Amino acid sequence: MRAVVMYAPGDVRVDQTERPTIVEPTDAIIKLAATCICGSDLWPYRGADDVDHQPMGHEYAGVVDEVGSAVENIKVGDFVVGSFFSSDNTCEICQAGYQSHCVHRGPGAVPGAQADYARIPHADGTLVATPGQPAAELIPSLLAASDVLGTGWFAAVAAEVGPGKTVAVVGDGAVGLLGVLAAKQLGAERIIAMSRHADRQALAREFGATDIVEERGDAGVAAIKALTDGLGAHSTIEAVGTQESMMQAIRATRAGGHVGYVGVSHDVELPGQELFFSGVHLHGGPAPVRRFLPDLIQLIWDRQIDPGKVFDLTLPIEQAADGYKAMDERRATKVLLTV
Amino acid sequence: MRAVVMYAPGDVRVDQTERPTIVEPTDAIIKLAATCICGSDLWPYRGADDVDHQPMGHEYAGVVDEVGSAVENIKVGDFVVGSFFSSDNTCEICQAGYQSHCVHRGPGAVPGAQADYARIPHADGTLVATPGQPAAELIPSLLAASDVLGTGWFAAVAAEVGPGKTVAVVGDGAVGLLGVLAAKQLGAERIIAMSRHADRQALAREFGATDIVEERGDAGVAAIKALTDGLGAHSTIEAVGTQESMMQAIRATRAGGHVGYVGVSHDVELPGQELFFSGVHLHGGPAPVRRFLPDLIQLIWDRQIDPGKVFDLTLPIEQAADGYKAMDERRATKVLLTV
Repeated sequence: MRAVVMYAPGDVRVDQTERPTIVEPTDAIIKLAATCICGSDLWPYRGADDVDHQPMGHEYAGVVDEVGSAVENIKVGDFVVGSFFSSDNTCEICQAGYQSHCVHRGPGAVPGAQADYARIPHADGTLVATPGQPAAELIPSLLAASDVLGTGWFAAVAAEVGPGKTVAVVGDGAVGLLGVLAAKQLGAERIIAMSRHADRQALAREFGATDIVEERGDAGVAAIKALTDGLGAHSTIEAVGTQESMMQAIRATRAGGHVGYVGVSHDVELPGQELFFSGVHLHGGPAPVRRFLPDLIQLIWDRQIDPGKVFDLTLPIEQAADGYKAMDERRATKVLLTV
Repeated sequence: MRAVVMYAPGDVRVDQTERPTIVEPTDAIIKLAATCICGSDLWPYRGADDVDHQPMGHEYAGVVDEVGSAVENIKVGDFVVGSFFSSDNTCEICQAGYQSHCVHRGPGAVPGAQADYARIPHADGTLVATPGQPAAELIPSLLAASDVLGTGWFAAVAAEVGPGKTVAVVGDGAVGLLGVLAAKQLGAERIIAMSRHADRQALAREFGATDIVEERGDAGVAAIKALTDGLGAHSTIEAVGTQESMMQAIRATRAGGHVGYVGVSHDVELPGQELFFSGVHLHGGPAPVRRFLPDLIQLIWDRQIDPGKVFDLTLPIEQAADGYKAMDERRATKVLLTV
């Protein structure tokens, strides 16, 4: 089968490899319907994370091809979506809604989903079957649910978005844009997208943004304050993961407000005293997408939301390297790879 | 009148000064019934915060002696308790329950309450009158409500303490001990006090602690994990404010759990990546004591709680310097000064 492998930073190739096989009796093998490149894949691509011949991809949707002997609920032939972290969905942490921290999670995200087939651990606890075989036009949205939609949604929930609230969104990548969509769905009164790119601003507005702030850093914070009687947002979604974006999010939020942060943290050190006197709530981390998947799949199935719009470039998987380059150079927000 | 003044680190004196007078029409002057020394007063005493001829004291309870022309609800003769930060209690931030971040708060805590009289800004929004003149034995508890009880209570609320939860408490000073009391009142199932001092352990148990952990740092975290099926506490109260105590609190908390931190942060830098992957909620800062004062006063009035037990040394105000010394040397948990 075909599999995207990052040999080294900036060096992405499509290898011919063996189809994965069942390793644990709780595994399933799925045949991908489509796959995609994540903004977090750019960290190793740019050398910010170590990488050495790494099978890439942790976002997936497709048809179950084989199940292990202990899999009870997921059947061969089901169309399924799963989270980028596997989870048994039965441990105390999973039951509390934090499946991304499942005690049986394994060391990292599900690997190797930029491929024709992928092995998914804890199939019963990780995968959610769709109500039937999806129409082709739903595939991008179902694929988005696997990570970027689920992550943007978690950020909005972590930021306690709700009716009557003003929400600021730091980061205009796929997760930030889907944070806007989530905020709209969760009833936010006002949604301020922070973006300097006309195409992303347009999609943010389509997803529900009521205001755009182009400034960053201190100027961005001042702009948010100016829009909120000097107080700051009730809820801020952070979807970047840098020192600047975290401080921008904290400073843009009023005392007693909530910051939901989901950008994978890189070289961030939060100053304790400033955080203390800010009075904000801080919550985030790797999103427990599994918690939200049943509802998100239903919203997509019912055509209530169309998160697949974040894919603005579609390439055959053989051209994965071009897809990484396009995202790295910000020519694309998110790349879908057909298989 | 008598007033405690910190001339320099380690140099505390009792000066004769003028009784304060009304400055703003929203002010009140109160005659202190008693006053006390706060753990946070030790930061400047030890040279960790700058100090230069600073009138000390921000915890107070007493009788209203004079009110400004704009004060409507608080009357001369009322016995009142107030928060260490003044607040108008009408702005949007106050109405959301974050009075310690009131937009009209002023630059710092109410100053000069280790004295015979103190000036309290925004009297109507800051002070809460007791149901009548209190019996003498209630004075220490009412005084405690002004800061340490309100702060410990806020920490427990920020840590989302509730029925069925296991709570860890980092710090065995007055605030940590009253965090134990708050956790008990809020229905926690299990309360683990982290303390190495026999007298404080005893008071923690009296306030509701079910377990004591003597270890600190990594060993302390391991002990908490051992008591919680390897998962960590649901809720952790942080009542110290150092790098070690913050990391101990974060690491002792399970993914999806809550850290309520109220120790005034000193030289703390939170590592972003570890915080991200911890999956905890973080909330804290200067406690909005005013939010809780009506309920806390009622609990004290009804003899449901006795937070005044944290005072383990009582001295006349003239001996304030001895009181600071006793707290600095950990011979006393908290010192009450009679006036």
